[in-house]
Amino acid sequence: MTEQLVWSFRENNKSLEESVLLLGNKGAQLVEMTRIGLPVPPAFTISTNACRSYLSNKKKWPADLEKQVKQKIVELEKEINRKLGDTENPLLVSVRSGSFISMPGMMETILNLGLNDATVKGLAQKTNNPRMAWDSYRRLIQMFGDVVLGIDSALFEGLLTKAKQKKGTEFDTELEEGDLKELVLHYKKLVKEKTKKEFPQDIWEQLRLAINAVFDSWNADRAIAYRRIHNLQEGAGTGVTIQAMVFGNKGEHSATGVAFSRNPSTGEKGLYGEFLVNAQGEDVVAGVRTPQPIVELEKFNLELFERLKRIAVLLEKHYKEMQDFEFTIENGKLFLLQTRTGKRTAQAAIKIAIDMVKEKLISKEEAVLQIDANQLNHVLHKQLKPAAKKSAQLLATGLAASPGAAIGKVVFSAQEALHESEKDPSTPLILVRPETSPEDIEGISIAKGILTSTGGLTSHAAVVARGMGKPCVSGCDAIVINEENGSFFVQSNGDSVTVKAGEWLSLDGGMGEVFLGKLDVEAPSLSGDFATLMDWADFFRKLEVRTNADTPKDASVAKNFGAEGIGLCRTEHMFFDKDRLPIMRQMIMADSPEKRKKALEKLLPFQRKDFEGLFEVMNGLPVTIRLLDPPLHEFLPKTKEEMQALASEMNVSIEFVRKINNSLKEFNPMLGFRGCRLGVVFPEITKMQIRAVFEAALNAQRNGIKATPEIEIPLVAFEKEFDIILELVKKIALKLDPKESVDYKIGCMIEVPRSALIADKLAKKSDFFSFGTNDLTQTTLGFSRDDTGKFIAAYKDKKVFDWDPFVSIDEIGVGALMQIAVEKARESNPEIEIGICGEHGGDPRSVEFCHKLGLDNVSCSPYRVPIARLAAAQAAIKEKLA
Amino acid sequence: MTEQLVWSFRENNKSLEESVLLLGNKGAQLVEMTRIGLPVPPAFTISTNACRSYLSNKKKWPADLEKQVKQKIVELEKEINRKLGDTENPLLVSVRSGSFISMPGMMETILNLGLNDATVKGLAQKTNNPRMAWDSYRRLIQMFGDVVLGIDSALFEGLLTKAKQKKGTEFDTELEEGDLKELVLHYKKLVKEKTKKEFPQDIWEQLRLAINAVFDSWNADRAIAYRRIHNLQEGAGTGVTIQAMVFGNKGEHSATGVAFSRNPSTGEKGLYGEFLVNAQGEDVVAGVRTPQPIVELEKFNLELFERLKRIAVLLEKHYKEMQDFEFTIENGKLFLLQTRTGKRTAQAAIKIAIDMVKEKLISKEEAVLQIDANQLNHVLHKQLKPAAKKSAQLLATGLAASPGAAIGKVVFSAQEALHESEKDPSTPLILVRPETSPEDIEGISIAKGILTSTGGLTSHAAVVARGMGKPCVSGCDAIVINEENGSFFVQSNGDSVTVKAGEWLSLDGGMGEVFLGKLDVEAPSLSGDFATLMDWADFFRKLEVRTNADTPKDASVAKNFGAEGIGLCRTEHMFFDKDRLPIMRQMIMADSPEKRKKALEKLLPFQRKDFEGLFEVMNGLPVTIRLLDPPLHEFLPKTKEEMQALASEMNVSIEFVRKINNSLKEFNPMLGFRGCRLGVVFPEITKMQIRAVFEAALNAQRNGIKATPEIEIPLVAFEKEFDIILELVKKIALKLDPKESVDYKIGCMIEVPRSALIADKLAKKSDFFSFGTNDLTQTTLGFSRDDTGKFIAAYKDKKVFDWDPFVSIDEIGVGALMQIAVEKARESNPEIEIGICGEHGGDPRSVEFCHKLGLDNVSCSPYRVPIARLAAAQAAIKEKLA
Repeated sequence: MTEQLVWSFRENNKSLEESVLLLGNKGAQLVEMTRIGLPVPPAFTISTNACRSYLSNKKKWPADLEKQVKQKIVELEKEINRKLGDTENPLLVSVRSGSFISMPGMMETILNLGLNDATVKGLAQKTNNPRMAWDSYRRLIQMFGDVVLGIDSALFEGLLTKAKQKKGTEFDTELEEGDLKELVLHYKKLVKEKTKKEFPQDIWEQLRLAINAVFDSWNADRAIAYRRIHNLQEGAGTGVTIQAMVFGNKGEHSATGVAFSRNPSTGEKGLYGEFLVNAQGEDVVAGVRTPQPIVELEKFNLELFERLKRIAVLLEKHYKEMQDFEFTIENGKLFLLQTRTGKRTAQAAIKIAIDMVKEKLISKEEAVLQIDANQLNHVLHKQLKPAAKKSAQLLATGLAASPGAAIGKVVFSAQEALHESEKDPSTPLILVRPETSPEDIEGISIAKGILTSTGGLTSHAAVVARGMGKPCVSGCDAIVINEENGSFFVQSNGDSVTVKAGEWLSLDGGMGEVFLGKLDVEAPSLSGDFATLMDWADFFRKLEVRTNADTPKDASVAKNFGAEGIGLCRTEHMFFDKDRLPIMRQMIMADSPEKRKKALEKLLPFQRKDFEGLFEVMNGLPVTIRLLDPPLHEFLPKTKEEMQALASEMNVSIEFVRKINNSLKEFNPMLGFRGCRLGVVFPEITKMQIRAVFEAALNAQRNGIKATPEIEIPLVAFEKEFDIILELVKKIALKLDPKESVDYKIGCMIEVPRSALIADKLAKKSDFFSFGTNDLTQTTLGFSRDDTGKFIAAYKDKKVFDWDPFVSIDEIGVGALMQIAVEKARESNPEIEIGICGEHGGDPRSVEFCHKLGLDNVSCSPYRVPIARLAAAQAAIKEKLA
Repeated sequence: MTEQLVWSFRENNKSLEESVLLLGNKGAQLVEMTRIGLPVPPAFTISTNACRSYLSNKKKWPADLEKQVKQKIVELEKEINRKLGDTENPLLVSVRSGSFISMPGMMETILNLGLNDATVKGLAQKTNNPRMAWDSYRRLIQMFGDVVLGIDSALFEGLLTKAKQKKGTEFDTELEEGDLKELVLHYKKLVKEKTKKEFPQDIWEQLRLAINAVFDSWNADRAIAYRRIHNLQEGAGTGVTIQAMVFGNKGEHSATGVAFSRNPSTGEKGLYGEFLVNAQGEDVVAGVRTPQPIVELEKFNLELFERLKRIAVLLEKHYKEMQDFEFTIENGKLFLLQTRTGKRTAQAAIKIAIDMVKEKLISKEEAVLQIDANQLNHVLHKQLKPAAKKSAQLLATGLAASPGAAIGKVVFSAQEALHESEKDPSTPLILVRPETSPEDIEGISIAKGILTSTGGLTSHAAVVARGMGKPCVSGCDAIVINEENGSFFVQSNGDSVTVKAGEWLSLDGGMGEVFLGKLDVEAPSLSGDFATLMDWADFFRKLEVRTNADTPKDASVAKNFGAEGIGLCRTEHMFFDKDRLPIMRQMIMADSPEKRKKALEKLLPFQRKDFEGLFEVMNGLPVTIRLLDPPLHEFLPKTKEEMQALASEMNVSIEFVRKINNSLKEFNPMLGFRGCRLGVVFPEITKMQIRAVFEAALNAQRNGIKATPEIEIPLVAFEKEFDIILELVKKIALKLDPKESVDYKIGCMIEVPRSALIADKLAKKSDFFSFGTNDLTQTTLGFSRDDTGKFIAAYKDKKVFDWDPFVSIDEIGVGALMQIAVEKARESNPEIEIGICGEHGGDPRSVEFCHKLGLDNVSCSPYRVPIARLAAAQAAIKEKLA
């Protein structure tokens, strides 16, 4: 039997889900609206199967398609008693694209198809409205010319403007029949000129070309790019809906509009939107005439307004989602042309979800699922006021590396930042760097925001900024930094702008935007609906959510965001502080264990104090402390001046400093002398850290604070590495006064494949595991995060991976190792707690994966804690529903 | 029931294997010899269990040990009718250590235990041989003082020499009773002086201290180091054998000696060894008197000589191995004191194995198992003549990085090597560098041998030299290179030696030795017994053995060594040639696809010719060609001069060259922009290489040569990477003239964990897999091979791993991933061929692992092909026997 490729609304008995896959979202929603009794003009849809067949078969229609389309046209003609191409009573149709998801960049709509030089006259006569007929014809030529024939729409607009100028009018509604006839002639001439062909007078040709244009738009660059960016599946294809036209341009009793069932900015309940009298759909979007707010419809036609309000409620009741729908009023008669889930701001999304639960429209589970966890970011940070952005100069757009608004004066180095902040600590600063390194930490911590010209979403600047909850725009390659002059240069809208140190800059880290000047901001609200949503999320989720925090300040922020402990404290970050770095360097440069111990003795009180601060903030919650991890050369001076300074401080020659520097250089630092390898070779370093942990815990306890340290061993690959560090910990624990005890745990990072493969052995001795998915991704894929810049763009383009494995866990590769580790570990130690503490811990897709793997906790940067909480709840709910 | 900790020979009914574990090898062999009827003095052995208990229990004897030892002593006393400590008829014993394997560095033997000031007189009287008694006593004090009390042996030797000087004699046999009595007094004074105690007169104390010393020697530094170097298990412990003394020092009818059942240097059958009249065992080893060759025993005592010959045959028949045994003749009576498998040269090992099969003593399987595969190395290369080495000046010893003898004039850079070889290509050269880099390839290829002052066994110099079969001594840190002066400096036996460019040097790469001057060499013989052994190995083995070879010359060497194909041709090595490097650089520097293609067009003919050469040599055998693998920056100029030269050649500014150089720099090149990533981003490079493969294959075929290329994709991590390269290959294959076809295969390297984890998917599209275990080890362990120097020594010391994972495959980690990959691959594509081509392919332990995993082939450097063939056969035989 031949496949049915064309479906009319009434014969479709499929579920909404099936319909969406078969017909695309737009077609399916029309079926749905018809089904619930809403006034939808009759129509039929060509299935996505037909599109796929066309695209994979050298743009040939599947065998039966033409026959089936003609058959449906005949049915349509019968239903509304008009005929396609009939010169007396012509049928006009719209042709619309629509895939399984709404996708800007695909061809959307052609209206008024079916008009030519002959049928336009028939329409004029039949409707007794020649103006409308000619207006529709010129619209058809314009849309068809643009969308199907690829003629620049601006050229048509130019002719339209000329016609209005000639007439001396402002609006196209003021053009009369004669003006429009003349405009049609100009339009047709333009088509001839650009395509070397006449505007097609054969209605069937119009239809065939339009359908092909919809099919082809699936593979338009913009559509492909959109699917790539949003990680949408390829190969689904688009449906083509052909619908009898209704006319919002039939005069003063006709109109067209767009409405939301709730306010998409605030979430407030009630009809929201706008409409245009005597117009067709594209006029609303085009912005030629300013539409009226939808409340004005009350005056235009009260009954219709009330009906629309009822329809909005009906739609929400049916879809259980805020709706964004299009309508047309033809001579006082209402038609619905489209509906879809409405896009909204994060604030609105939260309010709507909470309200819908109050209205008993949806369950709490559904409310939690309704929020895009990533979007939560927007409500957690101060934001630039939208109005301020509109009037400001946008200098450049880089990568949205860390969200929020930052306003400050430009500085070009960490030193400058320090210097400026010493002069006046209240001056807000924006640190602008080509890229940042661990030595910039203090500068970053002083600055309000970070702007880098190179480096991706997982560059040093981006990772550190997210960790600190500071806005960051990274990889903003439009700016050219001249560090010597203390300025950067950028081409902005044709202007050459030079920004000097001390000038004001405003960053929108959530959008990656860089503005000149000092913009206004608005504060986030974490109470009210937000708090309610988070409460619900906490009720549903099973994963514990911890935070990555190195300072009491970070820990405190995270705790406010609901963190249930510290999942990762990177002790090395504490050594970059300007009081400590010189001692750290002396420790590294020590040429005897005695000298090393002496330097370590000096570091001990600092480290102890750091830990005391963390214990105090987290009082009773777990604090996971990772032992020193980075290669030692990261702490060493880089420039000659710094080396000289260190040499003087240490009373050694600069050659000695250079020699040690050189001896610590590494070809592949990521795979080098770091992690627990440091502790195996220099146990005195580890001993100092463990002493600091225990002494801090005891001090805290003496002050009535409950300290629960979890000592974490990084980069374990061999069982014996774990044994050696464990031995050090036990020895120090044994030396404690037996009257006092510290309730500590010990565990290890699983961040190289080998540790996952011997998880059973490690688990026997571990209280906990934490997946370091950043490093695990690097080693499993053989990708250096710092070096992927050279090929990652090509890899995304060529779809080597569906998503950046440093943003969301590579489930197939890294995930497989994680699963091996979890299974082996739980079998050998059912009590073991397993978590994850890489950047992925704050990524909703990765959080869902962690839930599925059965982990106990995730840890993420403070500002992503609410996102992780929500994502964890969504994962749990999805599992329950599945 | 109390455990039996002490075993006399006669009551032992265990198998030899059980005995070895329980009593150590020495004790077990004595049991064995007793059992087959050989004359062994009565004895008993304290078990290794007792030793383990002592070592793990704070050096306390297990509860029942003293009682059991005493009981056995009583039995011994009864058997030979003497009594320990009896002043009239004293029992004397030897105390010997012996673990499951013979281990130098452990305490070996104390003789004459049981003598004191009283019993020495009894012995003198009873034996009527006062000289022997006093000689035995002074020997006891000397050995006990050295081994048990830790007094420097040289101090005793000094006293002995003084005694001889005083007497005016040359040999200690010439000392008479009175002299020896006086010497004993001096010895005892020395003991008192050094230990603040008298030499123990209590015989039981002597025995207890001696037993403890044996136990303790298990943990002596030298013993631990030996076990580490030879990868022997810890914790086994040593046995202690206590045996009634027999006396080779009873006069002119007494003697002691060491014999081999065959010549350990040549393998020739027949008694070989030496003996000393009127001596005890340690005199033979100590070299005070020069022993006589064993054939002289014929004159000494013909009957005994014949008996010894029969015993040698009997021992070989019993052990099915060449034996090394110790004997003593006491007043014309023969005793055997020890036997063990004899150490031998590689040449001897081969001859012995072959002869034993001819003698029907062992099977071919046993013959193949008898050879240490690693030792084969010694017969494959030219060797320095041992006599020449003895008389030459040994300058320094480094790491034995690549075996064989190399003699040449010193050069200090690749440029110098080129320059010298242009002046006179027949001058042999030794390249001396701090370390080598890929740019030195041509210099290395010109030189006869390589000497580096830094870098380990897997450093660049070592890997490349082994690949080329060139002798190399690496990491020779005793030499201090001054490149500017063109000389190196070394402290040799107290002399300061400076070696200038142009001076002669001789390297023994198999021993890591560096000699001054031009030493004589001898050639290897690969025919005769060697060929027979290889034939047998080939018959038994299942693994195919291929070679890693980049040039026809290497391929040809490997084919002579029995390689059955090329398992890895690294195409990048072809680009370092001086004709090609400039074009390669232009290709990399190209700022448009056109320029890149132009440079590639120039490279194509070179590459095609390379492949033609390989096809010609391997005619019909598979040739695996790996696509370009290293990061592009490896090809770029490093110095300012080189950059300037390239800029001039390309007619661009040096800034441009520097900019490209900088843009290609990487933080972690190992995990960077390399492997198939290059081909995904720059398909034109891959296309050129594939065209070169196909065109070369067609050219070869037109010349009647059978070309069977296997195209190998490096560093695959994602299925799509494979697809993209496969597509390129197919497109080019399709363009071939349909009348001609190339029988090619396509496959990929499994060298990052992710590829192992998706092996099922990759296998569906692959004809073959090849494990790149070098990189797989780096990524699985998170170890950069170039950076492990900073911690590998500590890791070996602390037993983090049992063996260097870059020498033998880490079976637990890397091996687990390999197993996952093999299982997944075979399930999805049972036809797939799986091999390995890392450095591990030539390591016997790793070859055995590959056999167990069921791989199809291993590939190794040419000079290791015979080793891999033998190791593969051994693995197959072991499996059959298991």
